[in-house]
Amino acid sequence: MEISYKHQLLPIEKVFKDPVHNDIQVQHQVILDLINAKEFQRLRRIKQLGTASFTFHGGEHSRFSHSLGVYEITRQICDIFERNFSIEKDPIDGWNDEERLVALCAALLHDVGHGPYSHTFEAIFSTNHEQFTVDIITSPFTEIYQILNKVEDGFPQKVASVITKQYPNQQVVQMISSQIDADRMDYLLRDAYFTGTQYGTFDLTRILRVIRPYNKGICFTTNGMHAVEDYIVSRYQMYMQVYFHPVSRGMEVILDHLLKYAEQLFKESPDFFERTSPLLVPFLEKSETLSDYLKLDDHVLNSYFMMWCDHPDETLSDLSKRFLNRKPLKSVKFVTGKDEPLIEDMKQLIEKIGYDTAIYTAINTSFDLPYDFYRPNAVSSRTQIELMEYDGTLIELSKQSSLVRALAGEIHGDERFYFPKEMLTQSDNLFNDIYRMFQCYIHNGKITKPN
Amino acid sequence: MEISYKHQLLPIEKVFKDPVHNDIQVQHQVILDLINAKEFQRLRRIKQLGTASFTFHGGEHSRFSHSLGVYEITRQICDIFERNFSIEKDPIDGWNDEERLVALCAALLHDVGHGPYSHTFEAIFSTNHEQFTVDIITSPFTEIYQILNKVEDGFPQKVASVITKQYPNQQVVQMISSQIDADRMDYLLRDAYFTGTQYGTFDLTRILRVIRPYNKGICFTTNGMHAVEDYIVSRYQMYMQVYFHPVSRGMEVILDHLLKYAEQLFKESPDFFERTSPLLVPFLEKSETLSDYLKLDDHVLNSYFMMWCDHPDETLSDLSKRFLNRKPLKSVKFVTGKDEPLIEDMKQLIEKIGYDTAIYTAINTSFDLPYDFYRPNAVSSRTQIELMEYDGTLIELSKQSSLVRALAGEIHGDERFYFPKEMLTQSDNLFNDIYRMFQCYIHNGKITKPN
Amino acid sequence: MEISYKHQLLPIEKVFKDPVHNDIQVQHQVILDLINAKEFQRLRRIKQLGTASFTFHGGEHSRFSHSLGVYEITRQICDIFERNFSIEKDPIDGWNDEERLVALCAALLHDVGHGPYSHTFEAIFSTNHEQFTVDIITSPFTEIYQILNKVEDGFPQKVASVITKQYPNQQVVQMISSQIDADRMDYLLRDAYFTGTQYGTFDLTRILRVIRPYNKGICFTTNGMHAVEDYIVSRYQMYMQVYFHPVSRGMEVILDHLLKYAEQLFKESPDFFERTSPLLVPFLEKSETLSDYLKLDDHVLNSYFMMWCDHPDETLSDLSKRFLNRKPLKSVKFVTGKDEPLIEDMKQLIEKIGYDTAIYTAINTSFDLPYDFYRPNAVSSRTQIELMEYDGTLIELSKQSSLVRALAGEIHGDERFYFPKEMLTQSDNLFNDIYRMFQCYIHNGKITKPN
Amino acid sequence: MEISYKHQLLPIEKVFKDPVHNDIQVQHQVILDLINAKEFQRLRRIKQLGTASFTFHGGEHSRFSHSLGVYEITRQICDIFERNFSIEKDPIDGWNDEERLVALCAALLHDVGHGPYSHTFEAIFSTNHEQFTVDIITSPFTEIYQILNKVEDGFPQKVASVITKQYPNQQVVQMISSQIDADRMDYLLRDAYFTGTQYGTFDLTRILRVIRPYNKGICFTTNGMHAVEDYIVSRYQMYMQVYFHPVSRGMEVILDHLLKYAEQLFKESPDFFERTSPLLVPFLEKSETLSDYLKLDDHVLNSYFMMWCDHPDETLSDLSKRFLNRKPLKSVKFVTGKDEPLIEDMKQLIEKIGYDTAIYTAINTSFDLPYDFYRPNAVSSRTQIELMEYDGTLIELSKQSSLVRALAGEIHGDERFYFPKEMLTQSDNLFNDIYRMFQCYIHNGKITKPN
Repeated sequence: MEISYKHQLLPIEKVFKDPVHNDIQVQHQVILDLINAKEFQRLRRIKQLGTASFTFHGGEHSRFSHSLGVYEITRQICDIFERNFSIEKDPIDGWNDEERLVALCAALLHDVGHGPYSHTFEAIFSTNHEQFTVDIITSPFTEIYQILNKVEDGFPQKVASVITKQYPNQQVVQMISSQIDADRMDYLLRDAYFTGTQYGTFDLTRILRVIRPYNKGICFTTNGMHAVEDYIVSRYQMYMQVYFHPVSRGMEVILDHLLKYAEQLFKESPDFFERTSPLLVPFLEKSETLSDYLKLDDHVLNSYFMMWCDHPDETLSDLSKRFLNRKPLKSVKFVTGKDEPLIEDMKQLIEKIGYDTAIYTAINTSFDLPYDFYRPNAVSSRTQIELMEYDGTLIELSKQSSLVRALAGEIHGDERFYFPKEMLTQSDNLFNDIYRMFQCYIHNGKITKPN
Repeated sequence: MEISYKHQLLPIEKVFKDPVHNDIQVQHQVILDLINAKEFQRLRRIKQLGTASFTFHGGEHSRFSHSLGVYEITRQICDIFERNFSIEKDPIDGWNDEERLVALCAALLHDVGHGPYSHTFEAIFSTNHEQFTVDIITSPFTEIYQILNKVEDGFPQKVASVITKQYPNQQVVQMISSQIDADRMDYLLRDAYFTGTQYGTFDLTRILRVIRPYNKGICFTTNGMHAVEDYIVSRYQMYMQVYFHPVSRGMEVILDHLLKYAEQLFKESPDFFERTSPLLVPFLEKSETLSDYLKLDDHVLNSYFMMWCDHPDETLSDLSKRFLNRKPLKSVKFVTGKDEPLIEDMKQLIEKIGYDTAIYTAINTSFDLPYDFYRPNAVSSRTQIELMEYDGTLIELSKQSSLVRALAGEIHGDERFYFPKEMLTQSDNLFNDIYRMFQCYIHNGKITKPN
Repeated sequence: MEISYKHQLLPIEKVFKDPVHNDIQVQHQVILDLINAKEFQRLRRIKQLGTASFTFHGGEHSRFSHSLGVYEITRQICDIFERNFSIEKDPIDGWNDEERLVALCAALLHDVGHGPYSHTFEAIFSTNHEQFTVDIITSPFTEIYQILNKVEDGFPQKVASVITKQYPNQQVVQMISSQIDADRMDYLLRDAYFTGTQYGTFDLTRILRVIRPYNKGICFTTNGMHAVEDYIVSRYQMYMQVYFHPVSRGMEVILDHLLKYAEQLFKESPDFFERTSPLLVPFLEKSETLSDYLKLDDHVLNSYFMMWCDHPDETLSDLSKRFLNRKPLKSVKFVTGKDEPLIEDMKQLIEKIGYDTAIYTAINTSFDLPYDFYRPNAVSSRTQIELMEYDGTLIELSKQSSLVRALAGEIHGDERFYFPKEMLTQSDNLFNDIYRMFQCYIHNGKITKPN
Repeated sequence: MEISYKHQLLPIEKVFKDPVHNDIQVQHQVILDLINAKEFQRLRRIKQLGTASFTFHGGEHSRFSHSLGVYEITRQICDIFERNFSIEKDPIDGWNDEERLVALCAALLHDVGHGPYSHTFEAIFSTNHEQFTVDIITSPFTEIYQILNKVEDGFPQKVASVITKQYPNQQVVQMISSQIDADRMDYLLRDAYFTGTQYGTFDLTRILRVIRPYNKGICFTTNGMHAVEDYIVSRYQMYMQVYFHPVSRGMEVILDHLLKYAEQLFKESPDFFERTSPLLVPFLEKSETLSDYLKLDDHVLNSYFMMWCDHPDETLSDLSKRFLNRKPLKSVKFVTGKDEPLIEDMKQLIEKIGYDTAIYTAINTSFDLPYDFYRPNAVSSRTQIELMEYDGTLIELSKQSSLVRALAGEIHGDERFYFPKEMLTQSDNLFNDIYRMFQCYIHNGKITKPN
């Protein structure tokens, strides 16, 4: 009977209206059941963009919507592979459509282990969303495991191995996770759509037209070079203009300090947190289980911050209010190895105004490598993007594209020093001289030695 | 000094990137300060569409983003009025640009009193978001009041009176609140954009081109009739296809029963709620203040539902899970005054399966009047839409448009009976006969007497 | 061997980038050959919108692009029918995919007989584009015939019979030609896209999701009612706002008078036309063959008008210049059976200024029936749109939709009297009194008896 | 009185619906009159993209629509400059709104001298569209001159001097003509929109937000660097993927050979051309006047090609048919200075089949410099793009952007050898061996020495 569940198609395909892909088409009962699983529905309560929606107010979409999108792109790739490059036509490089279901499940579930404000949260509580993704898929008590296991014995592990990249079929692995995969393609398009920026736009239809399987993974026919190049540039632009926006990072810094401060305060006065923030306690105690993790989401954290606003500890209360009411720290660029002494001077001025610089200043660096060719000795090497000539020869992308070459291997982003907005005050008041002195350290948005 | 705050323009206009209007332009310091007020930032945590995002997963945008949009449309109308129809040019029907700031503030703040899941919440706790809007604007302790009061004495009351429609200048009132106003125009376009449906699309640019002030409010030049007609049809389509979607209402019904059940349970065991849901207690006790209200948002409610999942009371726990994990009740159309006896039969079958029909069934009606002409004797009469001929004569819209006439005065929507999904089960099991009997009452999606 | 041509698929599908449908996918060698046939390429030189591009400057697209679009929608319908409603699944109402090629060819070729400015041209020269379409498909000397005939004997006639609606399979006929067919759906979307108006936008994806075959043609599942309704309203809006635009009709009137005048002048002085306009002569002589027709296009006509600008006959020259340089006649609404005497008065004033009213005035009426149910006794009855209930019952659309009911059977459009722009002159000059008198006949854009 | 014409604003602004900019707003009577001038209306009959519409069938828009777009972007820039950077606020770097009308006129008219298929036509007939633009503007008999001269004495010359870049105010000059000007911005967006490609899309709104005047022209605030970078990449992509498309160039090659051949044939038998192609004769005779030039357009040329199809000279007839019926030559990449001997071998094979290689083969090179910094010694130096720091310091774009650096100063494009499609034939026939030998010279789309 289980074999039948694996192949069970819906009598009529079910469609989810999606603003990015127009329609998301579900044909398998398995996929519909996974979408309805509670661990997947939970993604509705976790924003895709974290603090970036404080800068781009349209970007309030959730990981739920992104996960459906990754599924849909993967489904479309499978359709094209099956239609044009099936293993029947090409036994060496072709696509085996028996791999479709594992690919679709992995695509849908690849982010299911994300928690609230993952980036910041994980740094503080030493959790890891990829590990949680694997755990959710392979822990017998989750609804997701139970659905996958009905497909066939060992199927949950198979899906998990795609996510950990250990699955033997690299076509499946690279569809979900490589430098140009369904995940990245969906989030660029989706984040661009919802924020209203246009930098993330590239021609998905054209990329789907030039993508093809080969025996070691996926590649792109050489005449699609410019479309792939355009995708790499879009990715770079989204990082520079949206993901690394200084104001969002000014909010991230506050969240970071807030959670760290709460962790410390918990050691002194656990009562308060046990009473007001029960679902966070296992994390403050470093004793969390998967089950604890599945109860957390943006909503739970934010509702705790709301309670903390009324805490007698002024710092906890102030940071909570700053986060909920969007009061970001301000920032200025600096250069490591050169500007640190100046930062120390600036901090002294900030302390004079009465701020604890451990709480109200921060260093934040945001860097991305838009594309990299394969470096066998690198700590984490990336699958390079290959272009295929008519005769089957493969050429690594940056060898063909001067644009990609300009971005490849070069890290982009910046280092910023964050401080209270008050320091930029212009108007007359008691601290006027201190403010003016502070501002002498800033020229053209960068830290500079005052004259 | 206060006069200067009123007219204080930003040195360079501040822009918020918006996917619907492209840019939202802020020129006044007052407006920027209002946006940064904590009562306004709170709107980020309240979804515009409530339970509709359970059906249209893209529709996760907040009232924050909608409020900026209403502001922006109002700003554009003011610009056009000032450029083409100023009171200097036309002392009788013209626009006095001194009204701009009050219009912009009212537009921005018109929804500031909305709470979580307003529709359902208000019905149960007898709160009223319009009254809260007025309270937030006029209560001296809010940041919003303090900002508005810096403009000039009595300014908060002025802004509030626009929202209550008592402001003497009806041009301002109708911009914000009439059958074709900045509020409706923004939400139709915005909800269409985020959900990915196209029904809400109409030509805003063209409408802004044909709108004009006159001494009793706003009207539209007669050559813009089809553009206005198109807006009315878009509005009708959004109601029929998005706002009244049966699945969203199936979730609303669950929320409604969940909150009602919690209210009842609170009377028996207040301890649990005091411990897990402190910010809701004032509402359960019917003793809430404005300050209590400002602490509530979608996130707080959802985090309480998360706690309730573990409550020993099975009904509270089950309803909470159904809501968080999106398990809507199913539904069928019926006709009042005809199908009630059949519904009673159906309920008996549901009871046989073991469901408490007071909890697990519901009647839900959704009706809208897409457009209405003025009816002096109606309980709540609407400002009718007027078309202006070249010579200044006004004609009421439905007199000119057969499409609008078809919609005017006629209520659209439907009545549905909601019940547990299980009742539609097809497969063999113990209750098979009951299910089959139940299903005999449904034909072509409507309740029908079984043969 | 011919059977093989019929089924010959391209090794890789060929794609035409299209702004409306994104990609147009060609899989059959037959279709690719038809597109490359010279009679089809000729459609590149015939504008889809005729004189409407004088009003909406973006609407310069050709019948070539529209024809590809009709093909693409038909292809998508075939795909959906084959996937969900094949004759194998449903022998009574299902779709037989053997019909695909004839449907695709008919879709692609349905407009191949269009000539330059068809509407006007046909009225004057008594040609008929539908007859020419049939002739092009079935005349042995055309490339199109030769391609189709390679498919199988009689195939050209089969394709032609779809266009004349005599093909036995009504599913195929209604796909191409009914009140909601691939032709109409493409032109509404395409004309809206290129002109930049939004009135023609409806949700094609959703319509393709609810369309289904049945034994007498095609219908729509009842839950798609609002999508179909929205399409009908879009169609109505495009007619009212784009196709019937008074300015375009003011250019059409000039074209009409120019061609009529040339026809008359030809009788007097054929030499001039034989020398400057050889390809038009067969039409002026009423002796044209299919081969003559295939040499005509917008470019040929316009280049002749360019020559006529220098003709000594002032009227021919003036009308030619007015057409090429876009100098439309102005217009005013009137009511038949009431305003004719007033029009006579107005004409007398126009004659006084020195205009020949036979040349420089015109009556133009534009009317459309946005939707009609079946009327067996009507001169040209229309296939009505049917909605299908879950149990297979069919309901005619206007029975379900009050919007459609408002439009059904009611003719929309207007009657206008066209005259020289000069008559609206305001400034002082010799004829001032006549102008002023003339203008007294116009009030609120309509002809009115002067006081 | 003339001064009044200069400042004469329309009572209500006139709007042209545009799919790219939504609305094109005309406020000055002068601009409306220029649009209605016959020399401007003529642009409706000249395609913006020339032969590229043979590859991208949506790209059928005219230079008329592009010219309106350039006007509109310029108008928007003037509005922003006037609002934020007026000379009243900043006497050194500010914008003087007295320059608005000359800027708007130059923007609207910058392409008015374009003729049919300019690129090819000019090469053969030694005409120059920029010179014609100046002539049309400054020749007393044109309608355009007469309108401009009504503004004030010498105004036509002023407008012309903007186009020749000799106008003293470099802000005006650079708006219309620099490496990032209204002309380029419009054509990238417009060509992308109509062809349906997305490569040309960049964020115009954002660029308009960071553009500002300074005393030597226009520059961009430094925080807009990525938006400008994105524009440069879009430009590069459009060149690579649309403007340099090998198939369009295969049509251009045919047009080139056709016109050259006609020129030659004219010397032998002028009668034929005098009879069939009178408006082209002055060009064939190299005796053309401005007045002759103004009678030419795409339509005239195409109608002549239609006549030439029936010419007894087989080459003239064949090339005409190939052009009208879209039968492009095929092509392969080659490298100058290396592959010429191989091309000679290939030509010999082509001759063996019976083709005259002077007619049926061609070398075509397409190269573009996407961006260049200032090179004082270059033959035609370009105005470099400057970024302005907060303190007013200017930095040349490629110093800041590694992406732009990768494109700057490097020429992109390719060299292709064109030949008859027949040479790629695969199927069996008489010439099979020759075809096979020919194909040995092609490997992975490039010319290669056969093994």
